[in-house]
Amino acid sequence: MTSSSRSGIQRVLGIDPGLTRCGVGVVDVRPDRSATLVHVGVVRSAPDAAIEDRLAAIAGGIRSVVDLHAPDVVAVERVFAQHNRRSVMGTAQASGVALLVAGERGIPAATHTPSEVKAAITGYGSADKRQVQAMVARILRLDAPPSPADAADALALALCHAWRGRSAAAPAGGALTPAQLAWARAERGVAR
Amino acid sequence: MTSSSRSGIQRVLGIDPGLTRCGVGVVDVRPDRSATLVHVGVVRSAPDAAIEDRLAAIAGGIRSVVDLHAPDVVAVERVFAQHNRRSVMGTAQASGVALLVAGERGIPAATHTPSEVKAAITGYGSADKRQVQAMVARILRLDAPPSPADAADALALALCHAWRGRSAAAPAGGALTPAQLAWARAERGVAR
Repeated sequence: MTSSSRSGIQRVLGIDPGLTRCGVGVVDVRPDRSATLVHVGVVRSAPDAAIEDRLAAIAGGIRSVVDLHAPDVVAVERVFAQHNRRSVMGTAQASGVALLVAGERGIPAATHTPSEVKAAITGYGSADKRQVQAMVARILRLDAPPSPADAADALALALCHAWRGRSAAAPAGGALTPAQLAWARAERGVAR
Repeated sequence: MTSSSRSGIQRVLGIDPGLTRCGVGVVDVRPDRSATLVHVGVVRSAPDAAIEDRLAAIAGGIRSVVDLHAPDVVAVERVFAQHNRRSVMGTAQASGVALLVAGERGIPAATHTPSEVKAAITGYGSADKRQVQAMVARILRLDAPPSPADAADALALALCHAWRGRSAAAPAGGALTPAQLAWARAERGVAR
């Protein structure tokens, strides 16, 4: 099912990539920017498994969600090299696998930075995790913030993508400057 | 065909991950450590294509080589975050896709650092690219060094993996200290 057959509703799969826990969240966003939760979960792989088996588990879990919920677009958190943590390469590999699954299913993909997501959801690029989780719950009218945090982050990514609109979706490798971002947000009235 | 049916010959697919050029090289290595070239090439993706389509192209090219040549093991270059180049995240994503293809085909995978590869091939961890290319040509009895460099690097990775032996293959996320590495090399007489 495509967005056109859902009468203007855009279905977005957000993915917070990770090897141990990969957050996946699907939302339907209407033209008036209101949103409904479709699916939320976490794809896991065993930390003591071989890296090739961990990535296969992540790919399998994401494919199941894609095949079950048929998103119109996939939004993946952009990973940066400057965080010189041991886990950053695993996170980058998981993000590659997430983007690959989209590409193989012919679904367009986009990446967004954590501060783009925070700014879109809370209006504040340095918001903390709990603020983001609370806003996600409010936007989707949930009784409690989704947990674990990876699942909430995946929903935030999906909402961010739908709200930022097509203009920000194209260059997966590119980035808007903070000024461009503020301008685009002001233009679309996203600041809240 | 497995290594056992090739009477002790180990067939290794080496992969030098990259988005624009991903080197792939297959070698057969006999128990006496002599080696034969089976396949060498480069899988490419268009720099102006969307990231999800580029990763799908890389995965498709690697799958073709795996299905055609049925390697016993896949060796992938280990990518480090400290090289804070713009391309490093794309390289990490391509390496994730390469490892995923191995995992999905049930083929064990391993990663090796560039200096492990250089040390195994030339006896010197800081060898330059031309020294590695020249040694690869000599080991495989080729008339000329394989080009481009990504293809030669993939062959060097495959040879390195076969020569370093099973002990170094297991922990794709782990790393030997330089002292452990020197000891392991000395023990197996790899220095040349």
